[in-house]
Amino acid sequence: MKLLYLNPNSSVHMTDGIVAVARQALPEAEILGWTNHGAPPAIQGPEDGAAAIPGLLAQLPAAREAGADAIVIACFDDVGLDQMRVASHCPVLGIGQSAFATATLLGLRYSVITTLAVSVPVIEGNIRASGYDTLCRGVRPSGLPVLTVEAGGEEVCQRLADEMRQARDHDQAQAAILGCAGMAGLKAELARRTTLQVIDGVEASARLAAALAQMAV
Amino acid sequence: MKLLYLNPNSSVHMTDGIVAVARQALPEAEILGWTNHGAPPAIQGPEDGAAAIPGLLAQLPAAREAGADAIVIACFDDVGLDQMRVASHCPVLGIGQSAFATATLLGLRYSVITTLAVSVPVIEGNIRASGYDTLCRGVRPSGLPVLTVEAGGEEVCQRLADEMRQARDHDQAQAAILGCAGMAGLKAELARRTTLQVIDGVEASARLAAALAQMAV
Amino acid sequence: MKLLYLNPNSSVHMTDGIVAVARQALPEAEILGWTNHGAPPAIQGPEDGAAAIPGLLAQLPAAREAGADAIVIACFDDVGLDQMRVASHCPVLGIGQSAFATATLLGLRYSVITTLAVSVPVIEGNIRASGYDTLCRGVRPSGLPVLTVEAGGEEVCQRLADEMRQARDHDQAQAAILGCAGMAGLKAELARRTTLQVIDGVEASARLAAALAQMAV
Amino acid sequence: MKLLYLNPNSSVHMTDGIVAVARQALPEAEILGWTNHGAPPAIQGPEDGAAAIPGLLAQLPAAREAGADAIVIACFDDVGLDQMRVASHCPVLGIGQSAFATATLLGLRYSVITTLAVSVPVIEGNIRASGYDTLCRGVRPSGLPVLTVEAGGEEVCQRLADEMRQARDHDQAQAAILGCAGMAGLKAELARRTTLQVIDGVEASARLAAALAQMAV
Amino acid sequence: MKLLYLNPNSSVHMTDGIVAVARQALPEAEILGWTNHGAPPAIQGPEDGAAAIPGLLAQLPAAREAGADAIVIACFDDVGLDQMRVASHCPVLGIGQSAFATATLLGLRYSVITTLAVSVPVIEGNIRASGYDTLCRGVRPSGLPVLTVEAGGEEVCQRLADEMRQARDHDQAQAAILGCAGMAGLKAELARRTTLQVIDGVEASARLAAALAQMAV
Amino acid sequence: MKLLYLNPNSSVHMTDGIVAVARQALPEAEILGWTNHGAPPAIQGPEDGAAAIPGLLAQLPAAREAGADAIVIACFDDVGLDQMRVASHCPVLGIGQSAFATATLLGLRYSVITTLAVSVPVIEGNIRASGYDTLCRGVRPSGLPVLTVEAGGEEVCQRLADEMRQARDHDQAQAAILGCAGMAGLKAELARRTTLQVIDGVEASARLAAALAQMAV
Repeated sequence: MKLLYLNPNSSVHMTDGIVAVARQALPEAEILGWTNHGAPPAIQGPEDGAAAIPGLLAQLPAAREAGADAIVIACFDDVGLDQMRVASHCPVLGIGQSAFATATLLGLRYSVITTLAVSVPVIEGNIRASGYDTLCRGVRPSGLPVLTVEAGGEEVCQRLADEMRQARDHDQAQAAILGCAGMAGLKAELARRTTLQVIDGVEASARLAAALAQMAV
Repeated sequence: MKLLYLNPNSSVHMTDGIVAVARQALPEAEILGWTNHGAPPAIQGPEDGAAAIPGLLAQLPAAREAGADAIVIACFDDVGLDQMRVASHCPVLGIGQSAFATATLLGLRYSVITTLAVSVPVIEGNIRASGYDTLCRGVRPSGLPVLTVEAGGEEVCQRLADEMRQARDHDQAQAAILGCAGMAGLKAELARRTTLQVIDGVEASARLAAALAQMAV
Repeated sequence: MKLLYLNPNSSVHMTDGIVAVARQALPEAEILGWTNHGAPPAIQGPEDGAAAIPGLLAQLPAAREAGADAIVIACFDDVGLDQMRVASHCPVLGIGQSAFATATLLGLRYSVITTLAVSVPVIEGNIRASGYDTLCRGVRPSGLPVLTVEAGGEEVCQRLADEMRQARDHDQAQAAILGCAGMAGLKAELARRTTLQVIDGVEASARLAAALAQMAV
Repeated sequence: MKLLYLNPNSSVHMTDGIVAVARQALPEAEILGWTNHGAPPAIQGPEDGAAAIPGLLAQLPAAREAGADAIVIACFDDVGLDQMRVASHCPVLGIGQSAFATATLLGLRYSVITTLAVSVPVIEGNIRASGYDTLCRGVRPSGLPVLTVEAGGEEVCQRLADEMRQARDHDQAQAAILGCAGMAGLKAELARRTTLQVIDGVEASARLAAALAQMAV
Repeated sequence: MKLLYLNPNSSVHMTDGIVAVARQALPEAEILGWTNHGAPPAIQGPEDGAAAIPGLLAQLPAAREAGADAIVIACFDDVGLDQMRVASHCPVLGIGQSAFATATLLGLRYSVITTLAVSVPVIEGNIRASGYDTLCRGVRPSGLPVLTVEAGGEEVCQRLADEMRQARDHDQAQAAILGCAGMAGLKAELARRTTLQVIDGVEASARLAAALAQMAV
Repeated sequence: MKLLYLNPNSSVHMTDGIVAVARQALPEAEILGWTNHGAPPAIQGPEDGAAAIPGLLAQLPAAREAGADAIVIACFDDVGLDQMRVASHCPVLGIGQSAFATATLLGLRYSVITTLAVSVPVIEGNIRASGYDTLCRGVRPSGLPVLTVEAGGEEVCQRLADEMRQARDHDQAQAAILGCAGMAGLKAELARRTTLQVIDGVEASARLAAALAQMAV
């Protein structure tokens, strides 16, 4: 089983972090992680997303050559997912879609906790377009930029925990989805601070991609 | 990993068939299969579904005692799924939901091939209520009763293959979902007769249930 | 005309209160009220709802024997309505559905005033699933537990009146639906305190059940 | 209890027929029937509907003076319902809406059997706009003009029965809604020819209007 | 090119203001403006809307005689649009619909800034019924009555600018739609005070009506 | 006014034809037409669409330099529209979206007549995702390949006219949308053969793009 994580942005450091989480989630598989050199250093809003697509599509021949059994687009905005799906030789998942599917399969009402407000409409649009809005109770911006989130620390965890409390008390959510690849490393700590079930898209995508690749579809 | 398949009807023979398919799909797990004694011998329409629910709910204490990591309701109608989810100690999946989720995660337009017309509204209702209608192109009755389907044979395969052809040519589907637990055993043969991707809910539920149970949600 | 109110919980006191309201609403009919002995003492959230269903279904043979012309499930969550409808010999209504239908037939935008926040997702889900969301402007928890509401008194009325004011000023609602069977007895008092039209599901269900039973459908 | 039926077209004969059906459905009430003199002789398509609205609105002062407890717009297209509702002193129902609400309250999947194809989009639009599409399985034109339907006879009944058979076998409907005020008189005969439950909007509107007027909303 | 603006209310002063804005937006066309004498002096809520419809319909013969190439209903509530469309000899646009279509064609998420809260449900209903809700992020009442808005001045502009800031920061809108014909004259001033794109329905309707009339549809 | 038509495929001949139609529709503007060299010779299905996107995005700097007031993506599938919109300096329209918007603004129920069945899901998906499905009655494949359509001739016109008749009689459509850029040249001939209103996206996009570019949004 060989899973390929494609990071749509050009930050190698972020690629490494994502691959580490995926390996922990699925130790039995070989996890590759490629960076989208030439793309913006971070995907902040739809402009960055558009700029990342040509680079993603250009990696598909190499992905096939590398023998990837499934590809995961490692950005919560699921940048270019539609285009990649139709052009790829193997299943392509997004970490956003994987998180939404996990909550839906478990029948859990969920809220997404994300970074800046600019990401809210993109995520909401993805949820609605793919039909995962039945159980969605809200998309909540924490006001924290991606890099701050990734750095972690007490203040960041407290801010995210505050938002999860709102998700539970105001949205009546049963699960909190971590709405940024950079939050994956904080999952264990965040789960300690809430009674909600916590869903991380990187972990979910690893498990679901393996499940799909092993089905004889 | 211990998966428990609950067959909502009272047919032990059907339980055995489902367990066999699940074991083949997920050989690394322990697969249990329980029959809903006292329920109708087959779930044909919503009346049978209603009659099966008390028996399903009554099995939950034993399921917890048996240490089930996940439960699958082994009927394509996903009988009692909402009630079971809220009352269970572990994740509960339906084979219908598992099949729809698989197609959605793969981004494939799908049609469901089922048995009698009486099942169509139940399945359509489930697809719409859970938000999986975005990619659904139709629910097609084959006109074959459950027992006939389960018995298999050339005539049955031909009838189902005809319907898959309609799904491809008329519905523009990319995948055919086998809309009855009794079709699981025919999957390999049916896949040979079509260019569509073929999704079986029993196999899908085994893979997805394992993936969900292994996530630290 | 014989209407049977089935209280899904095991509180005889609540059954009596509901029957009294229904008799006042429809003095020309015979009103029966049965309690779901063995069920939880109150339906608080979906777990209680699931636990109540087997007992409800078990009462259907006696309901037929008693000659019920229509059955009303006397819980605003409409517990087990789908299952009861398909298994019953006569029309089955819920008091939630009856209230939503009344507002919809009158063309009134409505908000629901309910008890605790835990009930909000259940009620919202029912409204959406049955198509009554076109005119729904919100489901508002008052923060009052069922028993407190039932006990009534000045403080309770004031709290509910506050919430109705919000429904009018913030939601632009034209009608307030009393979102708990325990509020039925307070309707006259609450109507005095608001310019909104006030709809009570117990009263609505009595009138609508009689209307449906008298149609030659 | 005084119910006022407003026939949006100028055919006095049709008004008389509708009033007769309503009286039979609700013998305990006083039923008035007014004709929209100056309007088209029949409402065939949205142009006729638009032409009928000013005349309907102009009758509201007299309706108030006559002491109507509820008004029913006696055209299956529910012509001018939104405008009448906001301008009237009492509840205003449409016979289309009343039929859809009846099926929804009974939890029955339904198809509408109507006259000419030109009416299909109007009826479909009304169903969708008011949220009654959850259980709707189709709107079927019989190809019979209104006057032919009203005249009745063996051929007409056979044509409508054929369409009801399609509704049952193809749409998987459980109920057939008679989609034209002119079919009300044929209900008993049509019910004899089908296993579907048959819902007539004139009868339904009489019963529901009385129920609503008697509620203390 | 001859465009006819029909003001549904009886205020000649408002008609003049609307015509002036339309002429500025489309200097190459002949712009007519007619007042609905006999209608309420302002359309405040759905009752006024209902009262305006007969007068609007009555103007259609004269509109045809005057040789109008397109008609615009000059009220943001799009009063009587459905009825006028089917009865008119030429295209009929509403200024609300024109504004929503502009935002949709540009792919901009938008919020509507309107006058009093009483107008919110009407506008929301129109957006939903016509399918323009995909990009709509909210309908925001400013609390300012129509006449106050029309009078303009610093305080009014500040209030509207405040609401546009909320639209940007809270709703994540990219465009603000001016939700009242009386705001058309303030557009330039309001655009100076925001980074959002500002859409005025009077201007949009002039441009779009001309575009449609010139197509050979 | 300078409008830039970007043909997503590499066929120069098709670019020329589109530009000719656009010039006729909007003689007062300067119309540019660029070909997507390096892309597939025709956009047949979503794979071709994905392959065309990088080339489209790469043309944006030159488009800005050329002073385009608006860009039109000249493929009925609206390939890459979302990505182009966020990355462009000026409004970007698609010819599919322009046609749907025209029908919606005119309040006309419409069916789309397209080429091969493989295009149906793409077009249906676009209609639903952008909210233009309220008036859509169907997307009908003619079975004719793009090149055959472009070549025109009696047989092609007859096939398309047949499908328009179905749209009118079966779908109850009021307008037929020509669902392929290659049909633009046949519009006059097709309009002669039907009582439906005929909408061509190339013409519509020219008129609407000019209208939008001239608004001071």
